[in-house]
Amino acid sequence: MRMKKFINDPRQLTAELLEGFTLAFPRHVRLSGTSAIVRATPKPAGMVRMVTLGGSGHEPGLSGFVGRGMLDASIAGEIFAAPGAVKCIEAIRDACAGGEGTLLIVLNHAGDVLAANIAMQAVDREGLNVKMVLTEEDISSSVGDRRGLVGCVAVYKVAGAAAEAGASLERCFEVAQRMAGNMRTLAVAVRTATNPVTGQPIFELGEDEMEIGMGQHGEAGTGRMRLKSANQTAEIMLDQLLTDLAVSADEEVLVILNGAGATTLMELYLVFRRVAQALEAKSIRLVRSAIGEFITTQEQAGFQMMIARMDKELIELWDAPADTPFFKMP
Amino acid sequence: MRMKKFINDPRQLTAELLEGFTLAFPRHVRLSGTSAIVRATPKPAGMVRMVTLGGSGHEPGLSGFVGRGMLDASIAGEIFAAPGAVKCIEAIRDACAGGEGTLLIVLNHAGDVLAANIAMQAVDREGLNVKMVLTEEDISSSVGDRRGLVGCVAVYKVAGAAAEAGASLERCFEVAQRMAGNMRTLAVAVRTATNPVTGQPIFELGEDEMEIGMGQHGEAGTGRMRLKSANQTAEIMLDQLLTDLAVSADEEVLVILNGAGATTLMELYLVFRRVAQALEAKSIRLVRSAIGEFITTQEQAGFQMMIARMDKELIELWDAPADTPFFKMP
Repeated sequence: MRMKKFINDPRQLTAELLEGFTLAFPRHVRLSGTSAIVRATPKPAGMVRMVTLGGSGHEPGLSGFVGRGMLDASIAGEIFAAPGAVKCIEAIRDACAGGEGTLLIVLNHAGDVLAANIAMQAVDREGLNVKMVLTEEDISSSVGDRRGLVGCVAVYKVAGAAAEAGASLERCFEVAQRMAGNMRTLAVAVRTATNPVTGQPIFELGEDEMEIGMGQHGEAGTGRMRLKSANQTAEIMLDQLLTDLAVSADEEVLVILNGAGATTLMELYLVFRRVAQALEAKSIRLVRSAIGEFITTQEQAGFQMMIARMDKELIELWDAPADTPFFKMP
Repeated sequence: MRMKKFINDPRQLTAELLEGFTLAFPRHVRLSGTSAIVRATPKPAGMVRMVTLGGSGHEPGLSGFVGRGMLDASIAGEIFAAPGAVKCIEAIRDACAGGEGTLLIVLNHAGDVLAANIAMQAVDREGLNVKMVLTEEDISSSVGDRRGLVGCVAVYKVAGAAAEAGASLERCFEVAQRMAGNMRTLAVAVRTATNPVTGQPIFELGEDEMEIGMGQHGEAGTGRMRLKSANQTAEIMLDQLLTDLAVSADEEVLVILNGAGATTLMELYLVFRRVAQALEAKSIRLVRSAIGEFITTQEQAGFQMMIARMDKELIELWDAPADTPFFKMP
């Protein structure tokens, strides 16, 4: 398969996409240095700053969630690559200069965690007030080795709302940890994508196969099987998620369906329909949802299903106003 | 290419996707009858209603724009098919029952226009106060035979804002006509999609080719050529659009980039970057923009570029608050 993407020089890809992004959303964001996306209008002084980091190639994630009510800064790496620790240190310093401490949210991928850990040691030595939260909610691996998938968006949303309301760093950290600890995600893929730098497919999958448990960059999953219907796929994934999270009847849940890139909203609506029906049959209360493309893997076909146990405060924080390029709450 | 989509029975596809959509956005929308998506909370009595119609399979369009500040109702057809005139008549009657007249916005495709014309004749005979606006901004055909593409979203936005502010039907019609008359769109495709009902590809294109001027359902375009870079593609399309719209230096424009389905936001950012650079070089003022997936063609790869001449009032209406599932303005 020849790569059919609208790009220019692959070596300039990340720089150009960040420039294009900031040109498209000047009301929301600007570029700081070469690779940190920050709010166009900073949060007032004395409030906690929310910072995240991760590779590019997953648009609109992660920088698409910088804005009022969510992130203050997103440190972008090259395509599918973590940003270096030096850039992370600079961005955290900038965030701390204006704020009352910084919450760093890191998706559990080896390169991102390495950069974040080095950065945390450095800013600790400088006496900066920073706490880190790791999202690791992909149930396709065993506990302790779980990847961070689309659940980070829920953490940005609730902890960002707390920060926007003037909560302390300790309080924002607690909210983020509570959200991160009560969410689970599972991915499914049906068709690979092309790496825009190398031009190579990022994984292989048979013509009639799908794979459950695939990671954000085509990392192998746990269940390769024949392609299933929307209903069957929804049921298989939801059952695993509810079991892992140990959800009981009458509990309240948030569901996020995150398209990988090429899978249509039409298909996600069908999957969501079955999820809603299955939750109702189990007397589990579907109180909030989000459906769309939040963190993609180029033009991969497939999706991620996230389910999270909510409490009254998390729902209030989820409902709080947000105004970012790709997540708005009026 | 085997169809790898998450669907159930293709005969139930439209009914299931509409059900899933309303389950996912209960705060915004509900289903009225079998195929009209209407606001969950109707506009107060005595205000103009905004209604549109069109085939399914283009999610989030068209029903994704039902909500405060935009549409009151969207009449959904089957996959790639216009809804019947009877459904249109029913939906317009319902809209007129609650409102101070109805503005019907129709994208220029044969089936949609046929249904809309029959419906308009019927509701005229009933003495209902309805005006119709046709969007026909695809410059790949000659004037008089131009298709309606993503520009409808701009018409929904500005006329919907006028209606929400209590404008008369005549006034909403004038605003919609002004927007429709000052916008131009051009599409490019690089890879086909699969029709989810038939399982067949909707068009053919060579491995190293792209086609400019392709319609919303794979209708043939005007320029088949070798795949170009993001910059070259942006320049070719923008030049044709600016020429057709006869934009002069110092004029103010809105740009919409609409992903067809599989083309990444990453690529759209690159294209947008070049559009912004080229407009600046021509001293044309890029005052507003939107970038994302608004009206898709399943998992087709490609995008639509829309450019519109704006005036002070159209910009104010564009900026007015909107709260729909897939277009929000805080």
